[in-house]
Amino acid sequence: MRVVEIIERKRDGAKLTKQEIDGIVLGYVRGEVPDFQVAAFLMAVVWRGMDDEETAQLTDAMVRSGERLDLSKFGRVVDKHSTGGIGDKVTLVVAPLVAACGAPVAKMSGRGLGITGGTLDKLESFRGYRVDLTTAEFLAQLGRIGIVVTGQTKELAPADGLLYALRDQTGTVPSIPLIASSIMSKKIASGAHAVVLDVKVGAGAFMRTLREARELARLMVAIGKAHGLDVTAELTAMNAPLGHAVGNALEVAEAIATLTGSGPADLREVVLSSGSEMLFYARRARTRDAARVMLERAIADGSGRAKLRALVAAQGGDATMVDDPARLPRARRVATLRAERGAFVAGIDAAAIGLASVRLGAGREKKGAPIDHATGIVLHAKVGDRVAKGEPYAELHLDDRPGDVEAGDLVRRAFAWRASRVPRPKLVLDSIASR
Amino acid sequence: MRVVEIIERKRDGAKLTKQEIDGIVLGYVRGEVPDFQVAAFLMAVVWRGMDDEETAQLTDAMVRSGERLDLSKFGRVVDKHSTGGIGDKVTLVVAPLVAACGAPVAKMSGRGLGITGGTLDKLESFRGYRVDLTTAEFLAQLGRIGIVVTGQTKELAPADGLLYALRDQTGTVPSIPLIASSIMSKKIASGAHAVVLDVKVGAGAFMRTLREARELARLMVAIGKAHGLDVTAELTAMNAPLGHAVGNALEVAEAIATLTGSGPADLREVVLSSGSEMLFYARRARTRDAARVMLERAIADGSGRAKLRALVAAQGGDATMVDDPARLPRARRVATLRAERGAFVAGIDAAAIGLASVRLGAGREKKGAPIDHATGIVLHAKVGDRVAKGEPYAELHLDDRPGDVEAGDLVRRAFAWRASRVPRPKLVLDSIASR
Repeated sequence: MRVVEIIERKRDGAKLTKQEIDGIVLGYVRGEVPDFQVAAFLMAVVWRGMDDEETAQLTDAMVRSGERLDLSKFGRVVDKHSTGGIGDKVTLVVAPLVAACGAPVAKMSGRGLGITGGTLDKLESFRGYRVDLTTAEFLAQLGRIGIVVTGQTKELAPADGLLYALRDQTGTVPSIPLIASSIMSKKIASGAHAVVLDVKVGAGAFMRTLREARELARLMVAIGKAHGLDVTAELTAMNAPLGHAVGNALEVAEAIATLTGSGPADLREVVLSSGSEMLFYARRARTRDAARVMLERAIADGSGRAKLRALVAAQGGDATMVDDPARLPRARRVATLRAERGAFVAGIDAAAIGLASVRLGAGREKKGAPIDHATGIVLHAKVGDRVAKGEPYAELHLDDRPGDVEAGDLVRRAFAWRASRVPRPKLVLDSIASR
Repeated sequence: MRVVEIIERKRDGAKLTKQEIDGIVLGYVRGEVPDFQVAAFLMAVVWRGMDDEETAQLTDAMVRSGERLDLSKFGRVVDKHSTGGIGDKVTLVVAPLVAACGAPVAKMSGRGLGITGGTLDKLESFRGYRVDLTTAEFLAQLGRIGIVVTGQTKELAPADGLLYALRDQTGTVPSIPLIASSIMSKKIASGAHAVVLDVKVGAGAFMRTLREARELARLMVAIGKAHGLDVTAELTAMNAPLGHAVGNALEVAEAIATLTGSGPADLREVVLSSGSEMLFYARRARTRDAARVMLERAIADGSGRAKLRALVAAQGGDATMVDDPARLPRARRVATLRAERGAFVAGIDAAAIGLASVRLGAGREKKGAPIDHATGIVLHAKVGDRVAKGEPYAELHLDDRPGDVEAGDLVRRAFAWRASRVPRPKLVLDSIASR
C-alpha cells in the first residue's frame, strides 16, 4: 500500500479502508509517513469528509497509537468535555460536584489557545497546582479521592497530539470528522466509561450553526457508542460568554462561588444539566432528575467545595485559595465601563470578549506562550439585563499591557444595546444521547 | 502574512493575491515555508482551483524563483513541448527539421516516468549523448549550430522542480492550474520567444477528455501570452500510440526514418503540424502552409537528418548512429505477435502499450531508476489496418526480464479487433493560438 495512493483515493472522494487509515495514522506516529504526506491527506479529508465508519476507524487508530487506561477497578468513571467557549468554567464546578456525589471523575484537560481558555490554565491559578501527573499518579489519586483533573499524558493517543499540531499549521482544523475523532480518541484512551460532551454553538464557539453542532454531536456520540461508552452531547449556546467572568483566576473565583450556591444562573444551569447526566451515567442516580437533586444538595452542604479543596491539595495547589478566593492572583487595577444611557443588553459578542481577554494577557495566541492568571473581564450585565445610565456593565482587570486600550474598546463594542426589553436567550439547545 | 492564513483562504475558495502566492512559492524555495504547509496548500489548489490571474502569478513566481535566459541575440528562438504520450518521438524529428529551416531551436526536455517516455532517455540511445549541458554550453551550442536539446538546468525555475517533487508524493499532480504553471514556468524561464505545445488527449495521455485538454491548452496559451510569448497549443489524439515504435532506441530509429521521408504517416502529420507552427512563429515563413513546404523540403534534401547528426555530435553522442541506425542499442531477441484470425484493428490501448514498455525495461516506475534503451514494442498494424490470419501485428524487443511475459500479454490485450472496416482516427483535434 503506497501512501500517495491513499491520499489520491481520499482526494477523489473514495471511502478509505481500516488498513489505509491505519497506514496513514500509525505510519505517521512511527515516523514512516512524512508530515507533508499527512498534511495533504488532512486537506483531502477537510475537502471530501469521512463517513461514520471511516471516522470511527480514524478514532480507533488514534486510540491504538498509544495506551488505553483501564479504570474499571474504580467503578463507572465519568468524564466531561467542552468543545470550548468563552467564560466556560463548567469543569471547575461540575467535576467536584459529581465527585462529591460519589461518582469517580477522571478528566484530562487542555490549555487555552486563541480566544478560548483552557481548564489547565484556570486551575494553575491555584499556586502550585500540577497538571503533569504521571499515569501512576493519575490512577492513585483517582482511587484516593475520586477526582483528578490533569493534562493529557503523552502515552494516550499520541497520534492525536501529532495530528493536531500539524492541522494547526496547515489550515486543516475545521473538519467535523477530524474534530470528532480528536476529541473522542482522547476520551476513549483515558478510560472513562461515560462522557458528557458540551458542544458549544454560536458566535463564540467553533461550531457556528446548530446544524454543524448537531452533526459533530451525533458523530461523537456514535464513535463513543462504537467503543462501548455511554455518551451524551448537550448543545449549549455560546453567543454570549457563560457566567460573568472571563479570565483564569476570575473564572476560578466564579466557579467557587457557584460551588457555594452564589454563582450566575446560566453557569449553574449548564453545571446541573451536564452534572446530572454524568451522575446518571455513573449509576449514582436512577433518573436525571434525582441526579439534579443530589447535585443541588452537594452545593448546599458544601461537599462540592470540599471536593475542589481536596483536588487542589492532592495536585499540589494552594487549597486555602478555595476558601479565601481573595488570595487568588489579582490584577493591578480594574477599569470599569459604565452605560452611556439606560438600555437593555441585547447581545454580548463572545468572540470579541475572548479576543479582549487575549489582549489583556489572559489568553495566548501561540501554543506554549505564557499567560497572566490575574487579568480578564467581568461582565456586570448579561443579555436581557437593563443597565441604568452611569451604571457599570463590565470591568477589565488589567496588568498594564499594551493591549489594554484595544481590549477596552473590544469589550465596549461587544455589547449591543436596545431600548426595549430583550428576552433571555435559551441556553441548553438540544441533547443527543447514546441511550 | 501568516502562511496558514494563505492556506485557509485557498481552502475556503478565495482568490489569492500576488503577494500571497509569492509568499508560498518563494518562501518554499528559500526554505522558510515548510513542505507540510506547501503540501496542504497544493491539495487546497487541487480542490478549489485557481483562476487565470492566480495561475499566471503562480507561473511568474516560479519563473522568478531562478534565472530567466535571454536568448534575444539568437533571433526568434522557438521551443516545443508535449504533455506526454506513448510513442511520442515528435521532438526528435521536428527540432532538427525546424533548425534545418533556419529557426533556432532551444529545448530543455525531461526524462520518462511511468508509462510515458522522455526525450532525454531517447536521446541517450546515442552512446555518449550529454543531457547535462551548463547554461554556457547551452548558449554556445545554440549560437554555433542553432539547435540544443538538453535537460533543464537547476538555475531555471527551481520552484517548479521542488513543487513537482512534492506534488508527486502528495497526490496533488492532477490540477490544471498546477500543470499549466509547471510547464509554462520552464518554457518562460528557458528564454524561447515562441512555444508550440502538443497537448495529448485520450486514454494514453494525462488529459483524458477533450474538455480538460482544451482548458489546459487555453490556460497555457494565456500564461504564455501574458509573458510576451507566442504560443500555439495543438490538441492531438493519444488513444493509440503515435507511430509504430515504443521504446527508446526503437523510437530514435523511427525518428531517423521520418527525417528521411519513410516514417509513419501519423508521426509525419504531427511533425509537420507542430513544425510549421514553429517556423511561422520564428518568422521563417510568412504562412503556415509555406512553412510546411519548407519542412517537406528539409526532409527530402536530408538537411533535417544532417541537423540531427550535428546535434548528436555537438552533445557528445555517437553521430554515426544517425546514418546507421542498426548501430543503435539492440535487444537480445524479438518476439512476434501474430493475428489469430483476419480482422481490422479497432483500437490500440496506448496506456497498456506504455505499461508493457515499462515491464520490458524501456520505462521507469520510480524517478532515477535506470532504463534499458534497447527494449520496446513495434506495432506492425495501426488502427484501421487489416491484418491477415497469421500475419504479425506487433513485436516485442526483449532483454530477458521477468516482466516479459506480462508485457506480451499487455500488448496482446491492448489490441481491439473488428471484422468490419474501421475508420482511421483523427489526429489533430483542435488548435488554440495566442495569435
